[in-house]
Parts: sequence; structure tokens; C-alpha cells
Amino acid sequence: MKVIVDLCVVPMGVGVSVGKYVVECQKVLQAAGLNHQVHAYGTNIEGDWDEVFTAIKRCHEHVHAMGAPRITTTIKAGTRTDREQSMQDKIDSVVKQEL
Amino acid sequence: MKVIVDLCVVPMGVGVSVGKYVVECQKVLQAAGLNHQVHAYGTNIEGDWDEVFTAIKRCHEHVHAMGAPRITTTIKAGTRTDREQSMQDKIDSVVKQEL
Amino acid sequence: MKVIVDLCVVPMGVGVSVGKYVVECQKVLQAAGLNHQVHAYGTNIEGDWDEVFTAIKRCHEHVHAMGAPRITTTIKAGTRTDREQSMQDKIDSVVKQEL
Amino acid sequence: MKVIVDLCVVPMGVGVSVGKYVVECQKVLQAAGLNHQVHAYGTNIEGDWDEVFTAIKRCHEHVHAMGAPRITTTIKAGTRTDREQSMQDKIDSVVKQEL
Repeated sequence: MKVIVDLCVVPMGVGVSVGKYVVECQKVLQAAGLNHQVHAYGTNIEGDWDEVFTAIKRCHEHVHAMGAPRITTTIKAGTRTDREQSMQDKIDSVVKQEL
Repeated sequence: MKVIVDLCVVPMGVGVSVGKYVVECQKVLQAAGLNHQVHAYGTNIEGDWDEVFTAIKRCHEHVHAMGAPRITTTIKAGTRTDREQSMQDKIDSVVKQEL
Repeated sequence: MKVIVDLCVVPMGVGVSVGKYVVECQKVLQAAGLNHQVHAYGTNIEGDWDEVFTAIKRCHEHVHAMGAPRITTTIKAGTRTDREQSMQDKIDSVVKQEL
Repeated sequence: MKVIVDLCVVPMGVGVSVGKYVVECQKVLQAAGLNHQVHAYGTNIEGDWDEVFTAIKRCHEHVHAMGAPRITTTIKAGTRTDREQSMQDKIDSVVKQEL
């Protein structure tokens, strides 16, 4: 089952600057070979359900290992059986209709 | 790794009444033996990370099998390494301080 | 326009224990006269759109005033024009079908 | 108070293709003069809290007026008092550290 995810990992108890934890999560996604795209309030990921959620778990493990005692993460996850749709397809469908 | 999750599964393309899909997800969580509690905008679940996310995947599979061609799900997931905390602990800590 | 909201306010840069900020938000909602119900991963609120979102803004203002330099909040917001539905109706519709 | 928001409006009861509703929301944001950027699972917006949330309410009103009887929306909202930060700053801080 393919999934498109929006992921926002928030480490708590480590101060206000969380950029290095976000960067670590990017590396985890990169190492997993998952197509992903950072935006201003999270990271979009597409891939096989199990691979994507294994990578999200690994993000939690890495961020805890970096010293964050608590993490709260928000995830949006979309699946569909009617047709294939990539992250780029979703953006294109909006941009095309705006023209 | 233990996790507390807030899960909100939204089937699309099946009309406005989605109660029966929510009920099906409750059954999936029940069958998984996971402690869970429905509220007005989702369901809280606590348990081992892998068991919880396996159940969430199964919710998507069941809701698609019931005929929903598209699903968008919102998940909040909290983990901590500093101490054990249950769903009831979280509620109690707020209620106690309000007194 | 009536709305049902799930609100989860996360103060950052104040350590791992955020209970007192959650309690402050409960007081804000109480003072606003809004029907609300805390759960293990947020608080559900129902009421007029403007009143609910004015209260959410006030939560941010109060939590900043308590010393949190950064806040990230997750909100789910549901509206419908087909019929009236309360938070309790939503829970009842699931519980009834489970029997 | 300035806010950065991630907005994902999901119309229910209108079938699986929701692109035209997303486009309508883009127009609402455009008309409000708000800086915004669509991504694969939502739209990021930055601006004054009141202006941003007034626009989000207008999105719900427009999408209902287009015929959607029910809407469920997910919002992430970030505020900070320690320093100014734009959407582009947030992306840059991650990209720079990845190099």
C-alpha cells in the first residue's frame, strides 16, 4: 500500500531551536531511500506504507538518541485505491487549475 | 518504544456519514488488544510503537475494503524516554492541577 | 458557523513538563464559556467559530505570557451544513454502533 | 501576533476529487493578500494571526458554498516571541545544515 505523508517531528525539552533534529530526520529519510520534500511546517514523504512508517519510527529513535527526552509528532497520511498519485501530481493538480 | 497516539481516520468519497468506518477502526484496535479511548474528534491509543502502527495500517486496509477509495488520516504520536506515562496519567495531571 | 475543534497546544523551550500550560488553556476556555472536554492528547471544544478561534488565540497569548518563547499547536476543525451535531452526538454515534 | 500555519482543508461528501476546493482556498488566501505556498499535503501561510484565521474561516465558508456539506480541516499553527522567522527562514535553516 502506497502512502503520502506529511511529517512534523517536534522534540520537547531541548530549547526552542530544533533545526538540527529536523536535519537528522532528513538524513534518516535519505538513508531510507524515500522520496521526500521539506516545507515550512514539515516534510512530505511518499513510498510504501511499511517503509515510510519504519523511517518515522527511526526518526523518533534518532531524535531521542540525540538527547530529546520527549517528542510529539504530527502526521497526515493519505492512501487511495482508485488511482496512483504522486506528491508532484497533487501539487500539479492545484497549480494547473489555478491558471 | 511505547507511544501514545491520537488517531483520526477520514474516509473520502463515501458521503458525509462516516460512523461505520470509525466503528470498524474501533474493532481493529480492539482485536489488536490495544488500550484505546474514543473522543469527539478521534481515538487515543497507547501501546508498543510497532503494534500501534500495525493496527493503524490495518484500519486503512479495512476502510478501503469497506469501499472507501481514499483516506486521509491525522495522527499525533508522543514518545518519551524520561519516564513512563499512560493516557490516564496525562488526563489526571491536568485535572489535578485544575482543582 | 458552528465548529467542533480538537486543540493541542505544545509550548517549546520550557522543558518536558507542560501540564501547567495545558491547565492555563483550560481556564481560558472556561472563561470563554465554551463547552470543552480534555482527553489524553488534546482538548475538544465546540461553539461558534469566532468564539472558539478567539479563545485559541488567547491560549497562545497566555502561554507566551507564562514564559514560553515558542508554541506549535495542532488543530482539527470540523464544520457541517447538513445538520447540527454536538461533540456528544459524535461519540454516541460510534458507541451505539459498537453495541 | 504573527503566525505560520500549515492548512489542509478536506471537504467530505463530494467524492474523491477535491482539487477544485483546494484551488478555491488558494484564491481566498490570494485575495486576502497573504503569503502562502502550496505543498503536497496542504498549504503554508504566514501573516498576522487575525488575518490568517479570518482567511481560514472564509475557506470553510467558500467550500460549503460550493456544495460541500461537511469539512474537516487540519491546522498546525506556530508562534514565537523570541525572534522573527519567516516560512523561508524555516526551510533555509534546514537546507543550510544539510550541506
